[in-house]
Amino acid sequence: PTTHLPPPSVNLLGPLSAETVGVAVFALSGALVAARKGMDPFGFALLAAVTGVGGGTLRDLLLGTRPVFWVGDPSDVIVCLVVAGVIFCLGPRRVGIFDGGKRGRALLWADALGLALFAVIGTGKALAAGVPAISAIALGTVTATFGGIIRDMLAGTTPLVLRQEIYVTAAALGAGVMVGLQAFRLDPVTCGVAGFAAAFALRALALLRGWSLPAFPRRD
Amino acid sequence: PTTHLPPPSVNLLGPLSAETVGVAVFALSGALVAARKGMDPFGFALLAAVTGVGGGTLRDLLLGTRPVFWVGDPSDVIVCLVVAGVIFCLGPRRVGIFDGGKRGRALLWADALGLALFAVIGTGKALAAGVPAISAIALGTVTATFGGIIRDMLAGTTPLVLRQEIYVTAAALGAGVMVGLQAFRLDPVTCGVAGFAAAFALRALALLRGWSLPAFPRRD
Amino acid sequence: PTTHLPPPSVNLLGPLSAETVGVAVFALSGALVAARKGMDPFGFALLAAVTGVGGGTLRDLLLGTRPVFWVGDPSDVIVCLVVAGVIFCLGPRRVGIFDGGKRGRALLWADALGLALFAVIGTGKALAAGVPAISAIALGTVTATFGGIIRDMLAGTTPLVLRQEIYVTAAALGAGVMVGLQAFRLDPVTCGVAGFAAAFALRALALLRGWSLPAFPRRD
Repeated sequence: PTTHLPPPSVNLLGPLSAETVGVAVFALSGALVAARKGMDPFGFALLAAVTGVGGGTLRDLLLGTRPVFWVGDPSDVIVCLVVAGVIFCLGPRRVGIFDGGKRGRALLWADALGLALFAVIGTGKALAAGVPAISAIALGTVTATFGGIIRDMLAGTTPLVLRQEIYVTAAALGAGVMVGLQAFRLDPVTCGVAGFAAAFALRALALLRGWSLPAFPRRD
Repeated sequence: PTTHLPPPSVNLLGPLSAETVGVAVFALSGALVAARKGMDPFGFALLAAVTGVGGGTLRDLLLGTRPVFWVGDPSDVIVCLVVAGVIFCLGPRRVGIFDGGKRGRALLWADALGLALFAVIGTGKALAAGVPAISAIALGTVTATFGGIIRDMLAGTTPLVLRQEIYVTAAALGAGVMVGLQAFRLDPVTCGVAGFAAAFALRALALLRGWSLPAFPRRD
Repeated sequence: PTTHLPPPSVNLLGPLSAETVGVAVFALSGALVAARKGMDPFGFALLAAVTGVGGGTLRDLLLGTRPVFWVGDPSDVIVCLVVAGVIFCLGPRRVGIFDGGKRGRALLWADALGLALFAVIGTGKALAAGVPAISAIALGTVTATFGGIIRDMLAGTTPLVLRQEIYVTAAALGAGVMVGLQAFRLDPVTCGVAGFAAAFALRALALLRGWSLPAFPRRD
């Protein structure tokens, strides 16, 4: 009987690691916010990088991994810079078409994909570090939501986490599903894929159908 | 003569540690802000947890303790989740009665209690780690105020630290009293209780009598 | 042939370390924001200290240096407290003269000096820790801009990084110049001075001539 679970290496996409995909989509969401705020190329780069690697940075700080992942190997930072450069070069008109109005909500979908990926990756790294189950779920949830929180706070917009739409809930569900399935000694990849699917499906339903949980009335 | 002070174990309440009480009251203040902002249950949970363990997390990061306290032992996170759940289940009407209007300012009092407790706990842990006196006071002050700062920034409200009411002052007084008394080789528990009492009394007077320090006129 | 570069000790001012000067000017910018917001003396102290040591704190956390620099040696915290005290004691009228209106923009110039100094210091410490060139530039840029970001977020004003003026760009230029010259095995002090001069000159031109890079139109 195994007494120690192997770290769940969630590699969904062959050569691209899931982490790099998560970094890229969060960087995309950061670049789209920079576009809305009318920033210059280096503003795009900063917002894309902070959003892309912010969640993983908090995760590494909380776990005590040092230095944080992108300091030793800056490839994920380069991914963020490339994303920022591509979005800036597309120009306002083309970015506006697929981001704004009724045509598309690219920012929300990029954020949803990053949320689901980072919930699973954060939870997986926490489990691999041997922390208790509750801590692993908390770490997965916090690090999945932190990139978007810092993006929205830097840009001075209302953080997505404060909206009534299901958001934190989706990250917590994905982290919880992953931890729950690991407890049954299932294959780590299966656990990761199931957690990702649960988080993304719930967030997608919230976006498509306006699902929300019962909430308090606002009083401010 | 003792050359090394024992760590001040500030245990004011027998079975409950002072840290857990501080976490609970800050979590309460976070849940009350979530109530005002009309959030759903997971929004309550996130805001309660971030407020409850945020100050201690910053303290551990600055001191280099790793992983941070709640990652290894998530009992304080569970306390936050329970507080969030209880407040959500009370429902808007009952929460409104003891939080709003003239009847009560539960948010401000929970925040004051957490401020005083965390000032003392943060200072104590810094002294136990052997840092210089000024650093211990700074650490106690910053970590006592950080939970409330992050709560208010996430919720998009003006941080309490920016109000003219005595706030940072109370935390700094509590930390300073504790460090000062330790220098006289007093019993650590006595130092902690005195620091707590000083911080809470000053903040309570500010709340009850509207005390404030001389300040600059606003120019923005 | 040298296989390991010595750490670039950027000591521009003899007895005063460049780091202390950077801390002091950022503390000054924090105290000026506290003055505008009408804060009391401890509010001045908190905002000056957080702005002064915030960037270096993030740098040390990301690099894994522990505890962070000011915890072991609080002299830079004391510098911040002295700066806060002096500005508060000057009184609203005198502070208003050299900060406000057409007469002076002391806040912007103090921020510019701190930005250029911290870009070079952050990059130098990262290079000394042996991180890759891209990471060193990213660390220098992020830590140079973080003090001002946290100052502006605490004060509830639009972060300088979001303005169209060249800001992040200046920090990145300084860090990039320093890393580029180091690659040619130039004297570390020369690299640091050149990086500082490049960053400060670009930011000064942006302030004096209103230079900006092409940017997207705002859409919010």
